[in-house]
Amino acid sequence: MREKIKPSILPGFMELLPQEQRIFNDMVNKISRVYETNGLVPMDTPIIEKEEVLLAKSAGETSKQIYKFKKGDRNLALRFDLTVPLARYVAQYFNDLSFPFKRYQIGKSYRGERNQKGRYREFYQCDVDIIGNGKLDIKNDAFIISLASQAFKSIKLTGYKFQISNRKILEGIFEDFKVENKSEAMTLIDKYDKMDKNDFLRELESLIGEEKGKIIMNIINIDGSSKEVIGKITRLNISNETFLKGIDEIKEVMKYMKIFGVNEDEYVINLKIIRGLDYYTGTVFETFLCGNENYGSICSGGRYDNLVDKYTDNILPGVGVSIGLTRLFYVLKEIGFIDSYDLKDKLDYLIIPIGETFEYCAEISKFLRTSGYKVDVYLDDDKFKKKLSYANKIGVSKVIIIGEEEINNRQVVIKDMVSGSQIKSSIDRLA
Amino acid sequence: MREKIKPSILPGFMELLPQEQRIFNDMVNKISRVYETNGLVPMDTPIIEKEEVLLAKSAGETSKQIYKFKKGDRNLALRFDLTVPLARYVAQYFNDLSFPFKRYQIGKSYRGERNQKGRYREFYQCDVDIIGNGKLDIKNDAFIISLASQAFKSIKLTGYKFQISNRKILEGIFEDFKVENKSEAMTLIDKYDKMDKNDFLRELESLIGEEKGKIIMNIINIDGSSKEVIGKITRLNISNETFLKGIDEIKEVMKYMKIFGVNEDEYVINLKIIRGLDYYTGTVFETFLCGNENYGSICSGGRYDNLVDKYTDNILPGVGVSIGLTRLFYVLKEIGFIDSYDLKDKLDYLIIPIGETFEYCAEISKFLRTSGYKVDVYLDDDKFKKKLSYANKIGVSKVIIIGEEEINNRQVVIKDMVSGSQIKSSIDRLA
Repeated sequence: MREKIKPSILPGFMELLPQEQRIFNDMVNKISRVYETNGLVPMDTPIIEKEEVLLAKSAGETSKQIYKFKKGDRNLALRFDLTVPLARYVAQYFNDLSFPFKRYQIGKSYRGERNQKGRYREFYQCDVDIIGNGKLDIKNDAFIISLASQAFKSIKLTGYKFQISNRKILEGIFEDFKVENKSEAMTLIDKYDKMDKNDFLRELESLIGEEKGKIIMNIINIDGSSKEVIGKITRLNISNETFLKGIDEIKEVMKYMKIFGVNEDEYVINLKIIRGLDYYTGTVFETFLCGNENYGSICSGGRYDNLVDKYTDNILPGVGVSIGLTRLFYVLKEIGFIDSYDLKDKLDYLIIPIGETFEYCAEISKFLRTSGYKVDVYLDDDKFKKKLSYANKIGVSKVIIIGEEEINNRQVVIKDMVSGSQIKSSIDRLA
Repeated sequence: MREKIKPSILPGFMELLPQEQRIFNDMVNKISRVYETNGLVPMDTPIIEKEEVLLAKSAGETSKQIYKFKKGDRNLALRFDLTVPLARYVAQYFNDLSFPFKRYQIGKSYRGERNQKGRYREFYQCDVDIIGNGKLDIKNDAFIISLASQAFKSIKLTGYKFQISNRKILEGIFEDFKVENKSEAMTLIDKYDKMDKNDFLRELESLIGEEKGKIIMNIINIDGSSKEVIGKITRLNISNETFLKGIDEIKEVMKYMKIFGVNEDEYVINLKIIRGLDYYTGTVFETFLCGNENYGSICSGGRYDNLVDKYTDNILPGVGVSIGLTRLFYVLKEIGFIDSYDLKDKLDYLIIPIGETFEYCAEISKFLRTSGYKVDVYLDDDKFKKKLSYANKIGVSKVIIIGEEEINNRQVVIKDMVSGSQIKSSIDRLA
């Protein structure tokens, strides 16, 4: 025997067995369907791009994780999200696109993250973004969140909570407080959940001063229903313009979310939501599964007014949302959601020929496929027992058995693999 | 103004505008549907793999074109087809899979090819393979070709021709002729179409001798209907076992193709079909568009009995077909097929709110979406003329206009963008 190479994949890459792959694809199909029925156009971009184009915008903490390599003289990089390629795309094809440009994209991105549970180096993202030409109404921010809500509902996921903020609120407060290292403070708040609360307060105080630190600590921890939180923030009586704009925007988002069918129990206002990437300028949100917040956000997004400005002088503000489908799938496996997933879109029939009935089986298969069924035909010469064991293994619920007698009578035998019962049926009644 | 980075992608990568992307996706959906209704399971594998795993099997001429790079200490490579990852997958999950294992996979592969028309460095492949445990009936070879035929029919493509051979036929002839450098001769014949015919004959003669060279030249150029070709080859009266096995197999494939619904005018027998990769062991085929053969094969495949043997001692023979979807799309654009593509799966309605009717518009949109329509709503505050110009640009055929009067009457105005005519309709009649 020759030496064998161990068949294995890289750590941090997800690969599924057929049954789980079917569920994964079913989720992708349902989410795509939501985006399609909402009038979004599909988009696809290369996974490999020029490094200087992909890294035109600061990628923040992500930049260390990017897969980069040379091919010939060129510096190449694998895309690390679907947002930067979108910015490049709208700048590149500006004259050919209709604005507001509403697209969805489902594809793989790459980050060389430290290997840990739920973090993948290759991961699917389901993104929706809307890009305006010159301006973009705040309704779009609410619409984007409603799309994520519809996407979750389409796969019958419950117990998620959008945590929504608007960066202008905290920025306005910092301006009002004359805080100089505003962006460091924002970066710190972004890490709040991962830190010990005393350590956090100490760091915040050392950044912006003790008194202001304590006030900010109180402000970012305002809680209650969305209306209560907005009420409490409003009563801070801050007159800074950025702050007031932020409050206005988040109220508008709440108003339109309701119109778009997002229920009040689907979201909360949380001022600690910042989003790591620095291109966000208004609405920001993350999404957690209640009781499973430790798995991190499964869906994030927000408003970015200047993402495209590295590529073009055109003013192209946008708002977007990204469902991290690979991570979501991992989490849903962990919490048992995948085990109880109701997969309707599966194989309907396995046809088992017995004796010289193959031509008839092919005919029945074609008939059923034309009627929209999914049909597998056992093509190999094996014993009946082996054929039936294949049926069990692939988990098909109905097997059609065709022997020579059935051909003569233009009938089939249908075996229910769950109950074990068998009935005879005429072909015409099959469909 | 700050310096801008030119938004552009790498040469050799395909990127589509929305209208063409819709058609591309429609083709992918239809082909997937064919595979699904034929009982194949979906599969997905990482794009990045360990270099030593991907290159376990000789990749022939392809090996120079592989994207390889290091990340940390690891040697990584981008997959250059979907077949080698399949071999790795079935070896790795052997105990978890049901055999015959029938899977389809649609995904991107990478080859750093010389930049030329119709050759892409990133390209979609739509692959189907069937892997048997220990053995695999010849019916599967015919089934695989019938799937490609169904796939083409699903997108209403005509004028393609499967060019089919069986490697055992020529190998048997070479054995019978006691040709020593058989594999060099096979490699040469694989290049026949790209060579001047005199040069070809001279090279063949220098490889295997003048007399044998002339005979082989005649044999590989046998033409006519499939039955005629088989008749002529049979009458060569060669008694070599490999040869006879090859003849038997190709006859079986023809018999079952008919049963699976592949018409006789969809294929020819052509002994010059070898397939570049050296893992094929029996049936081999390529597919050309009649009159556009110069674009190369759009769909190829064949039988491989030993592909998995680098990873496992299990005997896992397989047969597969791959549609090169990116190249096919390019060719179909060139020959005008895409321009006249009948895209049914497109946006049904654009809703345009006039005045304070937005809530009502959202309601109508939800109502239509629930009925299965694809609906875009114009969310931004713009002049009516601009909204209508957006409708024209995105190419929607029906616009629903809703002003305050319509709310009061529970009606909508439907404007046909093709004829320009407008009608009023009650909501209930809309769906």
